[in-house]
Amino acid sequence: MTGDWESGRDIRRLCRTGALVEPTSGRAPGYVQCNVVMMPADSAHYFRQFCEHNPRPCPLLAMSEAPGSVALAALGTDIDIRTDLPQYRIWRDGVLTERCDDVEHFWEDDWVAFALGCSFSFEEALINAGIEIRNISEGVNVPMYRTNIPCISAGPFAGNMVVSMRPMPPADVIEAIQICARFPSVHGAPIHIGDPAHLGIDDLNHPDFGDPVTLHQTDMPAFWACGVTPQVALEAAKLPMAITHEPGHMLVSDLKNTDLAIS
Amino acid sequence: MTGDWESGRDIRRLCRTGALVEPTSGRAPGYVQCNVVMMPADSAHYFRQFCEHNPRPCPLLAMSEAPGSVALAALGTDIDIRTDLPQYRIWRDGVLTERCDDVEHFWEDDWVAFALGCSFSFEEALINAGIEIRNISEGVNVPMYRTNIPCISAGPFAGNMVVSMRPMPPADVIEAIQICARFPSVHGAPIHIGDPAHLGIDDLNHPDFGDPVTLHQTDMPAFWACGVTPQVALEAAKLPMAITHEPGHMLVSDLKNTDLAIS
Repeated sequence: MTGDWESGRDIRRLCRTGALVEPTSGRAPGYVQCNVVMMPADSAHYFRQFCEHNPRPCPLLAMSEAPGSVALAALGTDIDIRTDLPQYRIWRDGVLTERCDDVEHFWEDDWVAFALGCSFSFEEALINAGIEIRNISEGVNVPMYRTNIPCISAGPFAGNMVVSMRPMPPADVIEAIQICARFPSVHGAPIHIGDPAHLGIDDLNHPDFGDPVTLHQTDMPAFWACGVTPQVALEAAKLPMAITHEPGHMLVSDLKNTDLAIS
Repeated sequence: MTGDWESGRDIRRLCRTGALVEPTSGRAPGYVQCNVVMMPADSAHYFRQFCEHNPRPCPLLAMSEAPGSVALAALGTDIDIRTDLPQYRIWRDGVLTERCDDVEHFWEDDWVAFALGCSFSFEEALINAGIEIRNISEGVNVPMYRTNIPCISAGPFAGNMVVSMRPMPPADVIEAIQICARFPSVHGAPIHIGDPAHLGIDDLNHPDFGDPVTLHQTDMPAFWACGVTPQVALEAAKLPMAITHEPGHMLVSDLKNTDLAIS
């Protein structure tokens, strides 16, 4: 069912009709996949500020042109953010309470949707350069860790940065830094390499999110600002209600990953 | 005597008239300084190949247009490679035998001169980005080490790569990689970061060339391919006669360091 011929629009159609409720990893190769966050306009004002203050973990790719708008024209034709993801998470008072295949019945006229860059884009660029991505070769979720680096807060949104970790030989770290620096809208270069203690991480084998991966003796861990950071900030904000994508179940756009590279 | 108003041509004039025999470090800020190697044409054929095979340690910026030509038009107007450096080294059968302020009496009609990129160029770019270069802040020569990485040989030229090492915080390493990658003609990005043992280096406090520098507890050592590599290959080649610059006493060109950046 998966195929190189799939476009972002194809995936969105499958989601909209209920034919796709699975993760989007590996689907529509080459197309930009996005983290999604939705909330009422009065909170959205601060969430936008939070993203702008913390662009490394929260790279804002697009947001609703006006409250109530379910389209994200910058990311694709005829997007309906209420139906075009495979699965959503519903948050009440900062607590995850349920999961849904579509959120038409939750969306209100004053809601705003945000789409943020996702590591899938730079992982594709690294793989194309011949770099092994351990979480992909081991078939697990990338390990993610809470750090001691505070984000710049905005209104109710605050918290420490979450990072994802990919171990690789030092020569690959050097190359990955050069490649990822060209993709600032999908987290950019790593924020740290080497000693996890520098970020306040005690044990790489016990990630706070995702799964542990194998570190070979000559590997160096590389840490990227992670899109789970806004979700942690959302929990802290304790909004009466908010909606996000289910991790791994992304909005697939019409943009190509290569379009995100700066020269 | 040193001043921002100096040009590369000014420095070469001072050398030519014998008024400058000191190191060129810090002189004519912004101008590209070069390693220099000179030898008879029959060996130069292989030395050019050696540089082309090993561009990271031996980035060839210019060479004599024809045997006997003392100009390097690509690097500056009216260069006379026999007189325009502050100090030279004379090598006989691969052994350093003497030092001179000019080499007019050694140069022959069949000799060829090579100019290679030098780390001064990227160090300037790093300093301009606010990165501390330890050997500069401690006022010593950069520490350099023989590695276990063989160069690709050409004719009599062979040997392992020599690297220079600059310790810095991991965040600066990440930035330095991005900056230096834009300067492939002056050694480019580091070839290794982190564990010295990976390069066969036993003890950072005992460099094979240059001086040791302080490593702070949170520093990560970054290793660049080094312009001493061709000098080691020259020693191995045991040419009856060859000439190089005295380390630190460089050919200062008319090019600006910023001209070397690729986009």
